[in-house]
Formats: sequence, C-alpha cells, structure tokens
Amino acid sequence: MMKKHPKISAPLRLALLGSTGSIGRQTLEVVRSLPEQFEVVALAAGRNVTLLEEQAREFHPRLVYTERERDYLQGRIKSGAISAAWAEMEEMAAYPQVDLVVVATVGAAGLEPTLAGIRAGKPLALANKEVLVMAGEIITGEARKHGAQIRPVDSEHSAIWQCLWGEEPEAVERILLTASGGPFWALPREELSRVTAEEALRHPNWQMGRKITVDSATLLNKGLECIEAQWLFDVPLERIEVVIHRESIVHSLVEFRDGSIKAQLSLPDMRLPIQCALTYPRREAGKLVPRLDIKRIGSLSFAAPDLAQFPCLKMALQAGRKGGTFPAVLAAADEVAVKHFLAGHLAFLDIARLIGDTVNAHNGVYKPSLDEILAADAWARSFAREWVMART
Amino acid sequence: MMKKHPKISAPLRLALLGSTGSIGRQTLEVVRSLPEQFEVVALAAGRNVTLLEEQAREFHPRLVYTERERDYLQGRIKSGAISAAWAEMEEMAAYPQVDLVVVATVGAAGLEPTLAGIRAGKPLALANKEVLVMAGEIITGEARKHGAQIRPVDSEHSAIWQCLWGEEPEAVERILLTASGGPFWALPREELSRVTAEEALRHPNWQMGRKITVDSATLLNKGLECIEAQWLFDVPLERIEVVIHRESIVHSLVEFRDGSIKAQLSLPDMRLPIQCALTYPRREAGKLVPRLDIKRIGSLSFAAPDLAQFPCLKMALQAGRKGGTFPAVLAAADEVAVKHFLAGHLAFLDIARLIGDTVNAHNGVYKPSLDEILAADAWARSFAREWVMART
Repeated sequence: MMKKHPKISAPLRLALLGSTGSIGRQTLEVVRSLPEQFEVVALAAGRNVTLLEEQAREFHPRLVYTERERDYLQGRIKSGAISAAWAEMEEMAAYPQVDLVVVATVGAAGLEPTLAGIRAGKPLALANKEVLVMAGEIITGEARKHGAQIRPVDSEHSAIWQCLWGEEPEAVERILLTASGGPFWALPREELSRVTAEEALRHPNWQMGRKITVDSATLLNKGLECIEAQWLFDVPLERIEVVIHRESIVHSLVEFRDGSIKAQLSLPDMRLPIQCALTYPRREAGKLVPRLDIKRIGSLSFAAPDLAQFPCLKMALQAGRKGGTFPAVLAAADEVAVKHFLAGHLAFLDIARLIGDTVNAHNGVYKPSLDEILAADAWARSFAREWVMART
Repeated sequence: MMKKHPKISAPLRLALLGSTGSIGRQTLEVVRSLPEQFEVVALAAGRNVTLLEEQAREFHPRLVYTERERDYLQGRIKSGAISAAWAEMEEMAAYPQVDLVVVATVGAAGLEPTLAGIRAGKPLALANKEVLVMAGEIITGEARKHGAQIRPVDSEHSAIWQCLWGEEPEAVERILLTASGGPFWALPREELSRVTAEEALRHPNWQMGRKITVDSATLLNKGLECIEAQWLFDVPLERIEVVIHRESIVHSLVEFRDGSIKAQLSLPDMRLPIQCALTYPRREAGKLVPRLDIKRIGSLSFAAPDLAQFPCLKMALQAGRKGGTFPAVLAAADEVAVKHFLAGHLAFLDIARLIGDTVNAHNGVYKPSLDEILAADAWARSFAREWVMART
C-alpha cells in the first residue's frame, strides 16, 4: 500500500540558483534546519552580492555566481575572501557533484540553467514560474527525454503533486487550483481604478516578493499557475479550474475520475513546499513550519472566481489555451506593466489594458523554438515599454 | 512519481457477505454499474431471504448462505428455484474462485469469515466495524502473516487510506478523523435526557442503518472508528484525533511529520468508498456517485468535540487505550443499549450509563484469544441485559 524508501545516508548536494531572493533564502532556512541532509555545492544570485557573500561564508559552496556586480564578486574570490570558484548557472546545474538543482531564479533567467540541469538528467526543484509559462512544452519534453524529474516548489503545485503521489495519471479528472483572491477580491470594480501600489502589496495571507504580490492582486499569477500545472501534470487547461479560497489553507485539490477529491492543507508557509521538493520521496520532520490546527481554523470557504472582475486571469487562461509564444508574451507584458505600476507610472487597471494590447498585437508562433520564445519575449517587452511611454 | 497498473482484464470475483444490508446493497449497485469488472461468486445474508433470492436471480452466484430462514433457502435450492449451492460464510471467504471478500456483515458475525478469508491470503474489503474493534490485534496480525490486504470501506477509513497512498508509513504524524457530530451536536446537555429514538435517527448527512445512526448521535461510533483506524493504519490511538465537521464533505485527514496535511473529500455517498475498495489500485470512472462542486459548498467547518457532551466517545477512546477485551465489551454493551433505546425501554442518556457500568464491571483480559474475546462479548451482553431488566 505504501512505498518504502531507504534512509538517505549521504547528504544531498544542492545547486541553488537564485539564493538571495525570497525562495532562495527560505531554501537555505530549510537546509539550515536539516543540516545532515544537505550540502550546498553552488550558490547563484541576481544582484544582492552582499547577502551572497554571507551565504557563501555560512554554506561553503564550491561554486558561486552573480548576474550583476560580477567584478566585485570575482574580486572577492581572487582576494581569497570567498573560497569558491566562479561558474555560470548552466555549469552549476550540470555540475557532476550536484544531485538536485533548485531553480529559484526569476523571469527568463532560469530558462537556460533549467535546460542544462534537465539535459544532465538531474532532478530539479522548480520555483521559477516563467520557465514553464514561457517554454513548458520544450522543458517537459526534454525532461521526459532525459529522465529528469521536475518537482514543483509553488505551494499550489506542491499540493497537487502531493495529492498525486500513489495515483495513476489517467485517474486524474480535474485539478482545482486555489486562489486567495488577493486584497481586491471583494472590491467593487469601479474602485479598482483607484487602487495604489501600496494597497496591492498587502496580500492577506502570504509574505512574498513585490512582483508576485501584485500578480496575486490581479489574479494573473493564478492564470500563470494554471499554465504551469498543465505542463507539470500533463493535464489540459480545460480540466484545470481556479477556485477562490480566501484562507490560503487548502493549497489545491485534485478530483479523480471516481469522484474522490484529495486536498493538501497547511498554514501558508513556503518552507513546506520547498522542503517537500528537497526531501522527496521522504518527508522529514518539519522543525520550521508552524502546524495547522484544523480545529481552530473554524471554517474554510470556496467560491468561483469572477472573470469580469479579474480580466488578467481571463487573459492568462486564453493565452494558455492559444499556446505557442502567447504565454511568454503575456508574462513579459505583465512584468513591464507591474514594474511601472509599482513605480507609480501606471494605474492598477492599466496592467490588464497593457497586457491585453500586447497580446492582441502579437503574431503568435506555434511549436516555437527556444530562440523564437526569447524573441517573442523581447518583442513583448519592447512593445509594452513603448505603450507605457506613450501614456506617461 | 505515480504508479502504473495493468488494466484489469478478467472480472474480479467477489464473495459478498452481508449482501442484503445497507452496505451489501450498495456494493451490488457498484457491481451493477461496472458489469465488466466484477463477478459475484458468493452471496450471504442475515435474514432477508426474499431479497437474497432476488439478488441470486440477478447475479447468479455459485454459493449462497443465510443466517436465519435456512430451511427456506435450502428448500429453494433443492427445488431448483435458486441454482446455487449452500455454503457457510467461512467457506465462501476461503473459496479458491474468490478474488476479493467483501465483509459487509454486522456485529460479531463477520469475525470468523474475515479470519477465514485472511488465512486464505485473500484481500478483504472490510465494512464490518466490530471485526477490528473486537479483535483488531488478532485480525491484523493474521493479515500480516498471510499477506492479506484489508481495504477499508467506511468513508472515514477510506479517506485515510486514500491519503496514505504513495506515502511512507513512518511519515504519518496524526490521523484526524472527522465526525458530523450527529443530530445532537449543538443541543444543551440537559435536553439530551429527553431525546427520542425518532430524533436520534435523523442523521444530518448520511442515510444509514438504525444502529449506526444512533451510534452517530452518541458519537460512540466515532470512538469505534478511532479503534478501527488504530489497527488498519498501525497508528497508536494517542495520535488519532476526532474533529467535528458538520458538513460530512471532508471524510478525514492525515497529518504528516513535515506538517503537510492531506484530506479526502466527496459528497457523502457510501458507494464511493465501496468502489474504491473494490477497484483498488485503480480508480474507475464513477457513474453512480454525484460529483462534489467545491465552489458551491460555500464553507467547511471544523471544531473540537466536547467529550463532556458525548461521554460515549470518551468511554470508547478509554476502552481503546485499555485494549484487550475492553473494546469488545464496550461494543457489546452498546449493541444491547441501542436496541433497548430504539425499543423505547431506555432513555438516550441511559446508553452511556449502561456502557459505563458494563465496562467498569468487566475484568479485562489482555492479549486475549478469539475465544476469550467472544466470552467477554457474551458476558457483556448478559450483564447489559440484566441491567436493562433491572430498570424496566
């Protein structure tokens, strides 16, 4: 009835790409809490080289990388202040002494390293949403070809993944992806026009980065998650539904063809899905994650989302159904839109307008190559920037 | 990540013990809905020989049995009205042409047939609660010895079982067994003394037999389910908790050591857990069970049970912790108490009093043999009957 797995003896050797972001830092918290289980072999950061240096001092990786401030980091290596070698993220992901690649980068930055890890046949813990949104077909095709397992790190996808353990793929009837609804769930549509960046950043349940918090307020994030789920679990978008669940306790549900539904629950804390992806197929005693006491929860609510209130969700699902380069274009337009909304250049409802105009102007490519995807991404960013400039 | 199972080609041959009761009839509904999948080889009933004869005419079993009205049934066999042979339930359970034994009998009647099936190494779908309550240690010990799988049919235990698929046994931290709370959940304690049999039979969510409906009103049933769960899943009672969940949608939850919780949900319909136990390890498209639309549910509530309000639950958990012959004595006293409550001889609160007095008067035997368990059962029935006579 249940699988037996041997106790892991040697520590699992990790490459952590994106170590200074929210997911990267929480990954290191998990590593710190289970010190016998893991060894950090490689650390890569975007720009926060100060934190990267601290992390390197604590975890003693063999390889380090940073996207910005390269000269500074290389100087620190040369001076002996950091006793690690410089390596590109692709090298880290394919490094023979790495057992698991944690992709906690943001945006298109994770694409090439993810592919490098997959082609080296390594299991990946994937937190970089855009990798699957932009290139889901290529990534999952390569993963099948090279026998590389992709373990989700997002709370919703981890929930779905956990509900699928021990189940037959063909028994899945529907995926029910939960959404908190964000801070503007109950707001009348006319008031959405006056919403500020500060208000959008007040997520009711999760502490996250600024970009993803705004994406949660527009519900675009939920559309991207549906696209991700389609690739991760090989279930067509038509059988993936968004369910509003304000309390963020049920992280998603799976309905099977006999009518049985499984759900995964916990307090909202990203360290649980991170730990799940790191320790799979074992579950380790969690020292970090506070326990959910279901008896104290009182009640859990569920409702259908209002697509008229949240056009970004509707557009994301449409882009997902169109496929090809459309999801990449949608995600790129959103990145530009959110950046300018946070900077005060755009109103909240402009995010949806900008995305809509960009997607409508796009000439889609079907079954695109990676280069075609990256070209569509670049086109969308340039289109969106011009759109903003024309209005500010 | 997910198991692959070969498509079943030959129909699964069933012995259905207790075919005319609520679970037995619903088992035949499942069989009727998946006609290619099953063959009914044996049918056994308690007393409803008319229905048994109808069932035999529809399903053409090779073997039939009835506990009462034996002469009538044997006459029908002799006359050729039923073209099947007479067999005892133990023979049916061990019959070589049987692939799965469905134990849907009630009370101690299922004990010997269950053991016979187990000793023949057959998988069992077990709906007869008392089998594990009375003799859990013996039954599960024999099942391990003979490699016989026990598949739960109760909705709560099926939920727990489904949540455990693909999980390691040692990863289980706690089982959260849900209880609707029955019709008297919110009733002030002083009003419980005036409750009638008719009121106790109005279960909010489930259509069940009379005995189990009263046991749901006292919450004794939930205590018995905790004892069952202890044996089915090899988890000590201290790590099994009862959670009040009025809506009967979440059929139970399992908490794992990393803090992750899995739950199983569906509309309350026994045909789903029955089908799960019959088709395992596959899930078949359910044609019978109406689908749960979580978005229309609105909300699901959870609370801790009040043990002072429901002394039967408290006593059942105590009996379970004491072990030995105590659970058998508790169950036997309850059977007598509920029978006399339904007949109008006892008040609702007398059920708890009678059980309490019987358990307190019992000299427990630890590590009992089957004979010692049956002797304790007989003693408890006799004690309880005298208790009732002294009061009526």
